[in-house]
Amino acid sequence: MLQVDPIAEARRNWEAHGWTAAAPAMAVVTSIMRVQQLLLARVEAALRPHGLTFARYEVLMLLSFSRRGSLPLGKIGERLQVHPASVTNAVDRLEAQRLVRRQRHPTDRRAVLAVLTPRGRSVAAAATIDVNELFEALPLVDPDRLFEQLRGVREAAGDFGASDAPGTRLPCDERT
Amino acid sequence: MLQVDPIAEARRNWEAHGWTAAAPAMAVVTSIMRVQQLLLARVEAALRPHGLTFARYEVLMLLSFSRRGSLPLGKIGERLQVHPASVTNAVDRLEAQRLVRRQRHPTDRRAVLAVLTPRGRSVAAAATIDVNELFEALPLVDPDRLFEQLRGVREAAGDFGASDAPGTRLPCDERT
Repeated sequence: MLQVDPIAEARRNWEAHGWTAAAPAMAVVTSIMRVQQLLLARVEAALRPHGLTFARYEVLMLLSFSRRGSLPLGKIGERLQVHPASVTNAVDRLEAQRLVRRQRHPTDRRAVLAVLTPRGRSVAAAATIDVNELFEALPLVDPDRLFEQLRGVREAAGDFGASDAPGTRLPCDERT
Repeated sequence: MLQVDPIAEARRNWEAHGWTAAAPAMAVVTSIMRVQQLLLARVEAALRPHGLTFARYEVLMLLSFSRRGSLPLGKIGERLQVHPASVTNAVDRLEAQRLVRRQRHPTDRRAVLAVLTPRGRSVAAAATIDVNELFEALPLVDPDRLFEQLRGVREAAGDFGASDAPGTRLPCDERT
């Protein structure tokens, strides 16, 4: 384990070069990358015994929360905010595991539904017990405040909401 | 763009199932994943004109901050907290771009140094101008507080510091 926080040190280097206005955000961005890596490793370790990745777990949970236990693939991508190719890949794997099956949409001929199987529902429920145990043990001092701060970043990036007032989006937003 | 925040909705679903103790951390973890994705896309968009990824940019900056403009590959992995294979890969690419060259360590025969070239130093400086512009424009309301909260998560995960008191580590820490 490092004795010194490497991100705090990067920040000191940034400030020493006179980049003081950018230094706090640099430290936040680098911290987000690191914390994402730490948390993903832990969530995936909890999911591995259930044969799931985080991406596949998210698909199962979204389906389990849906009224009919099924959603069009396009809708899944939209709700999980991931690329259509990632949804296709996750559903392929879940189908091979017999946790989900594909079905033609009853009314929209262009759409394909992912349907949760009974086995998929029970694997999702079992995985959730372990994932929730992990979540409850996470040392987050003030999760609600942290959530709100991250929500501000997501909202400003145009992630959701009706607002598109100037200045509220992140620069270089390739999705606008 | 979604009108409703999908993470807030996931949280409501969590609470509706009685998983109230886990719901705030679930929302934080999911937000971290999403914010990481948003920020990485933006940083990489700023770096792309310079022929760099974030991983390679981090290596260049670490070398540029070092006293001699060179560091052993092992040290780079330790400081950037990435897997040795990722460092090898980044240095391979940087070497092909002639931004870095490999050199035998003068005293430690088992170690290989990555040495910043003059071209590497100037590409890093040019990229930093664009990256800092992006950092300064990020809509972070209270970056210092956000940094501290993320720092708490990193510290509890055993990322740095001398503390290894019981209960301060995240569960399932495979590195301990």
